[in-house]
Order: sequence, then structure tokens, then C-alpha cells
Amino acid sequence: MSTDSSPAFPGHADTAEHTSLHPHGTLPNDRIARVDVPALLEEGRTRCAAGLRAAVARLASPMDVAAAYHFGWLDVQGRPSGRTGGKALRPALALLSAEVTGAGDGPGLPGAVAVELLHNFSLVHDDLMDGDEQRRHRDTVWKRHGPETAILVGDGLLALAMEVILEVDSVRAAHRAARTLTTASRALIDGQSRDLSYERREQVTLEECLHMAGEKTGALLACSASIGAVLSGTDDRTGQALWDYGYQLGLAFQAVDDLLGIWGDPRVTGKQQWGDLRRRKKSLPVVAAAESGSTAGQRLRELLADDAGHGSHAELTDEELAMRAALVEEAGGRTWTLQEAWRRRNAAIRALDSVSMPDAVRQRFVAIPDFVVARVG
Amino acid sequence: MSTDSSPAFPGHADTAEHTSLHPHGTLPNDRIARVDVPALLEEGRTRCAAGLRAAVARLASPMDVAAAYHFGWLDVQGRPSGRTGGKALRPALALLSAEVTGAGDGPGLPGAVAVELLHNFSLVHDDLMDGDEQRRHRDTVWKRHGPETAILVGDGLLALAMEVILEVDSVRAAHRAARTLTTASRALIDGQSRDLSYERREQVTLEECLHMAGEKTGALLACSASIGAVLSGTDDRTGQALWDYGYQLGLAFQAVDDLLGIWGDPRVTGKQQWGDLRRRKKSLPVVAAAESGSTAGQRLRELLADDAGHGSHAELTDEELAMRAALVEEAGGRTWTLQEAWRRRNAAIRALDSVSMPDAVRQRFVAIPDFVVARVG
Repeated sequence: MSTDSSPAFPGHADTAEHTSLHPHGTLPNDRIARVDVPALLEEGRTRCAAGLRAAVARLASPMDVAAAYHFGWLDVQGRPSGRTGGKALRPALALLSAEVTGAGDGPGLPGAVAVELLHNFSLVHDDLMDGDEQRRHRDTVWKRHGPETAILVGDGLLALAMEVILEVDSVRAAHRAARTLTTASRALIDGQSRDLSYERREQVTLEECLHMAGEKTGALLACSASIGAVLSGTDDRTGQALWDYGYQLGLAFQAVDDLLGIWGDPRVTGKQQWGDLRRRKKSLPVVAAAESGSTAGQRLRELLADDAGHGSHAELTDEELAMRAALVEEAGGRTWTLQEAWRRRNAAIRALDSVSMPDAVRQRFVAIPDFVVARVG
Repeated sequence: MSTDSSPAFPGHADTAEHTSLHPHGTLPNDRIARVDVPALLEEGRTRCAAGLRAAVARLASPMDVAAAYHFGWLDVQGRPSGRTGGKALRPALALLSAEVTGAGDGPGLPGAVAVELLHNFSLVHDDLMDGDEQRRHRDTVWKRHGPETAILVGDGLLALAMEVILEVDSVRAAHRAARTLTTASRALIDGQSRDLSYERREQVTLEECLHMAGEKTGALLACSASIGAVLSGTDDRTGQALWDYGYQLGLAFQAVDDLLGIWGDPRVTGKQQWGDLRRRKKSLPVVAAAESGSTAGQRLRELLADDAGHGSHAELTDEELAMRAALVEEAGGRTWTLQEAWRRRNAAIRALDSVSMPDAVRQRFVAIPDFVVARVG
């Protein structure tokens, strides 16, 4: 789906507006295009790899081995693996945010390590709670090392994240960064709690759904995008603006992820077609469709009520899945979610307007939300 | 078992020695006897109750309800319960340690709340990992609210502990207290990890056993006994001495707990007779006996090897349990553990020698280890 010429996406109009209104705001498109975002993400992951491994090695046995397996550093037989762990937004954002002061990204390193630890805490525990047996085409930690070890590994990673941040030399910076990290960790846990309780409910409102996405995805990217700046000793206002940027980026990311969870090409995403519908996930497109007030939305509500009413966990057939996907689309759930991704992308970029930073740093900040939404249009 | 007249317990000799050698050290027995430790513990729990409830209420649903159930504030039907939660060393120690500076115990309150949150994080997760269905004569959280909620509640309590501490006004005090708390949380998690891995092994050395007890019990009481002082702005040396005091107290407590786990009177402890033997726990008396080199110790080793070798989890009969208890005693495991409790009690009191504090505060610090060891002799 291309959005280049569509007036339905306020993103483009907004961007143009802000480029002209704010001399220190967003950059012209020709400069944005030059940022190699995949390389930026890869570099972030590489830069924090040593610190991450050193942190994980502090865990007692068998947590250390199970965590190394989770990160892909050990294969299923426990042998060193050549896996790099792929690309990730979080460490790249943490390092980039340290650069807003104009110094290097060095102070952001413990922040990058801490957000990775925090993120992986939530993956390990969520996989167990959700009963997911596979992650990145390998058995999940609980499946490979047992539920007890998975609980311990998650606990260990959460505590380690805090430990790494509190070891930062500057007491003031360490304290502020630890508060940022704690806010994100509490939000992650609250979000997962709501997610599980919503799964048992027939109806979830779009507001609840967005709030939960803010907790599960927004807060961690908000933390990532601001923790480096906090560690570099920037002022509270800048820290807050970067938090807001990351939060909106997280919501854009979630909207995109939810679109891919239904309509993503399995050859690109590596996930099953209609995967989120298969798992009866109340994702943004589904909830937006159900709330649309349209006939298709009403039909979808009835199907969701049937699911809940009968406590049915029977597998849905491909015909049923195709029908549900069509209903979501007909009720406007797909369009709304794509627009939402653009709205959040715009809000993220707008949040940068009040922050003064070197041009090259701003350029990279702006390129990231564009990269995120480009995955769907 | 009475130790009043036994020369086998170095505790008594040491105490006398230190009372005379250190004018600011331990107090004469007649003053120690006057501290009402049960009242002190009850008061600690009462003092932090409001703060604890306010912290737990921050958790998203259904964690808030499940956590309130765990703390005993709600009954199984979710109705408010009159349970006070009983007595506990941790909050009392945190409040007492705030008083070493001569000010009130006020600055210790967030510390008392935080150590309670941390302790209960470990209870909720450990119950799930250990498959324990009952705690304080009620279903455990995972049994009542499901494993997913138990994982979340534990995660939430761990994150809350950090949040509460980082909210303390003084940045320097909050930072030091957060480091203290993180050290304890990492030790708790490492200790539980070792505990689970030791359960799968045939032999555990006494050194490993003590190290693990230091992590699981020592570190949390060390944190409790020092976090109040840290929050009161005391110097590092005092903080370290109080940490050492709490660590040794924790090991004394564990030795006593392990004795009661085999020979405790079920009418007093509320636990099954020979409970730790029933659960084939490699507790201090068992490991000390197995390492004794005696004939009884050798026989015990063979039984433990049989347990491990046959992967047997068949229930042991009362005859078998009585025989094992007799072997542990004959091999000196009971005596060694009682002596160890006294050695640790003495080391705890010695650690106070270097700390200057008001007499009334010292009196209470000294009375606590005495109260702990008095449970067994």
C-alpha cells in the first residue's frame, strides 16, 4: 500500500508544515533519505554487544547460559553461535540520544545495555505467560530450559538493567536514568498485565488498546530515546521531549506491527499469515474495526463475542481468517491503523522541535519513524 | 534443646569477651533482656503497612488484587481481611537502622517498604518455581490466581521496590539505597537459581550451601539492616558495618530455620515434622552431617545418592524420615548447625562494634540476633 499521493494520511501534510514552521525542526526530505537506518540499527546493536554480554555473564548458573541462549549467543547445544542478534531500535536510540548534547555517544552505552536487558526481561517472561514456544525460529527459553529457569532469567535481566544503570559514575545522572528505567519497567509490566486481562474479555475499547500499547511499546522506546540524553546530563525538558518522541515512535511501531500481524507478507515478516487473527489478538485494526459502527464492524463484534462466549479456542480455518481480515478492512480498521501510524510518526517528529541538537543527530532521529512507517506504506 | 551450660557454643564465650573489650560494643545481658523483640517486629510491620499498601495499589489490575491477596489484605473471596501480616525482621531492621544517626526512623520508611516489596517478590516467584501450593495456610498466588498472574505480581513488586526507593527526595541517598537494594535483589535471584540447580545435584558442599544462604537470606537482611542508615545519610563505613551485621544475622536465621525445618515442633512452627527431610532439602544440618566423615554421615550420603540416582520422588515414610533425622543428628549435623547459628549471632553483634549509635538503638540491634537464636536454644 502506497501513501505517497493519499490525502488520507495527515503525516505528509504535517511534516511539510513543520519543516517550514520550525527552522530547528524536521529536515527536508532529501536529507532524511540519506540516513541508512538499517546500518544505524545494526551499529547500535554492535556497539552495546560487549557490555550486554559482560552484564549477562554476571548472572549465576544456569541463568547465564539460558540468557546467552535467549540472546542467540549460544545455540541449542550450548555452543557459541555466530548470530549477531539482528537489528534493534532500542540501543540505537539510546546511543543517539546521548549525542543531543553534541558530545559522543559514550555516555549512552550503559543506557543502551540497560534497555536491551529490560526489553529481553519482558520477552522471556511474556513468552512463558503467553505459552509461546518459538521466537526467532528457535525454542523459547522456557521451552528449552524450563519455566523455572525462564522466570529466573527474566528476574535476573530486570535486576541487571537496574544494576548497570546505577553503576554510572555520576550520581545525579545514574539516579535520573534509573528513574527513567523504572518508569519504563513498571509500564511494561502493567501493560502485560492488562494485555492478559483483556484477552479474557469480550470487548476492549480503542482507548484501552492504545493505552496498553503505550505501556508495552511506547514506554520502552520513550526510555530508549531519552536515557542516553539523561546520562549525558541534559536538562529535564530535553529529556521529556525525547521521552515523548520515543513514546509516539513506539505507538507508530505498534500500529505498523499490528498491520503486519494481519496483512504482512509471511516471506518478509517470517510470521504466519493472519497470525494475530489466528491468535484472536485484540490488535489495533481489529478493535478499531469493531468500534467503527459499520455493518462489517458489527459482524466482527458478533464473531468476537462468539469466541468469548463459547470460550472457544478451536483453531480458525483459513476461510474464517480470510473473512475476518476482510471484515476488519471493510470496517476501516486497516485504514485507521495506517493513519494512526502516520499520526504517531508526525507527533514523534514534532516532539523533537523543542530540542536543540546537532543537525546530523536530528537527521537520524527523524529518519527512524520514517523507516518504521515505511514498512507498511 | 538448651545451650545455657554448654561449652560447645562459642557464642556465649564470644559475647562475654566482646562485652568487656568494647565499651561501645554489646550491652550487658540485663539490658538486652529488656527489649521486647516481638513488639519491635510488630511495630515495624505496622509502621510500614500504609506505605506498602499505597505502593501495591499502583499495580495494574489484576496484579493489585493478587498482590493484596498475597499480603493477606484480601481473603480468598477478595474481601478485605483483618490479617495484619504478622511479624517480620525486615521492616523493623530498616526502621531501626535509620535511627543510628540519632534522628527518628522516618527516613527508613521507604526502605522498610522497599525491602518488604523485594522479599515478597521472591516469595511469589519462589512459590511458583518450587510448586508450593500453600503459604501461611492459604493457597499461594499462582495456585489462587494462576501462574501468569504470579509471574506478573513478582515482576511488579520487584519494579515497585526500586520505584519507591528512587522517589526519596535526596538524590544521593536514593542512589545509594537503590544500589543496596539492587545488590540484594541480584543476590536473591542468584541464590534461588543456585538453589534450584543444587536440587538436581547429588552432592552440595557446605561452602556452597552457606554461600547460597548468604544470597537468599543474608543479603536481604543485610539490605534491611543498612538501607535505613543509608537513607538517613550515614557514611559508607557505617552502612557497610550494618550490612555485615544483617548478613550474619541472616545466616544465623537460616541456620535456625534449617534446624526447625527438621526438629521444630509442628505445633509451634505450623510446619510438618521433618518437613525439610520430606522435601529432600539439602539444608545446613543435612549437608554438615554428610560432610562429617562419620559412619552416620556416610550412610546419609548413600541415602542421598540413592535419591538422586533413582530420580526417586517417592514419599518417604515416617520410619525413613525418623532414621534420616537420627543419622543427621548422630553425624553432628544438628550440633554443627546450632553452633553455626551462635557463631553468626556473635559475628552480627561484633559487626556493630565499629558503629557509633544511641544506646537504645544498639540495645535493640543486639536483642534481635538473640531473639533469633533463642528459637532453638
